[in-house]
Amino acid sequence: MKRDFVVETNLKQISMKEGDILHALKKTDGGFKEFGEIYFSKINYKKIKAWKMHTQITLNLVVPFGNVEFAFLDNNGTFKTIFIGDKNYKRVTIPPGIWHGFKGHNREFSIIASIIDQVHDPNEIVRKELNSYDYSWKD
Amino acid sequence: MKRDFVVETNLKQISMKEGDILHALKKTDGGFKEFGEIYFSKINYKKIKAWKMHTQITLNLVVPFGNVEFAFLDNNGTFKTIFIGDKNYKRVTIPPGIWHGFKGHNREFSIIASIIDQVHDPNEIVRKELNSYDYSWKD
Repeated sequence: MKRDFVVETNLKQISMKEGDILHALKKTDGGFKEFGEIYFSKINYKKIKAWKMHTQITLNLVVPFGNVEFAFLDNNGTFKTIFIGDKNYKRVTIPPGIWHGFKGHNREFSIIASIIDQVHDPNEIVRKELNSYDYSWKD
Repeated sequence: MKRDFVVETNLKQISMKEGDILHALKKTDGGFKEFGEIYFSKINYKKIKAWKMHTQITLNLVVPFGNVEFAFLDNNGTFKTIFIGDKNYKRVTIPPGIWHGFKGHNREFSIIASIIDQVHDPNEIVRKELNSYDYSWKD
């Protein structure tokens, strides 16, 4: 059986002279299961947070500020790279069981909004050291 | 009967050298009713979006980037001003029936995350022109 992998969804940005509106997630969207929590992760310029795998939760990620490189390990042991940010605005849905990490590519920092289907629970997360995988982060 | 007014809740920020974690909203939090949608509103420097009232939805607002002045009209016809942003990080819960507006105080722009308990519905929103109320926005 094919395991679910990450799903990318383009999101609408509505231009307004006082400031744009950026869609993120509706309960009627495909990637939505249930609401548990939303939190923000800043990632500083050229810093990396990796590697992490959620054993139970589904994440929906949006980057309303900056530019972030995400790396996802697929079933065949190869990595998929997705850049998301205000210039490439989309939502990425990550099912449980996917090793992933991310790197900030915006000077100062970027902001990732994580919408998860349970309240944050440190016990459902497994981690590996940054050098556990041979992935080439972009400059 | 006293009408519900806006509720301010301090939020945790967890310092990390690669980039901080900012709490926003859990389903177990007081202000949470139901999840409908999350979207982002940018507000450009010195720009104002006002006045708006939601007739049905409850909003939970967080400002993960920048600094925003919110003005809320209370039952007695006076305004309550709340600044929220990355230097004054909190959540504001706005029940239905409160006229409100906001002004950006961060150079370039600020970002407001709005978490609402129904999917966005333009028919439940009423609007008034900016000059409908005699409120003094801060410089």
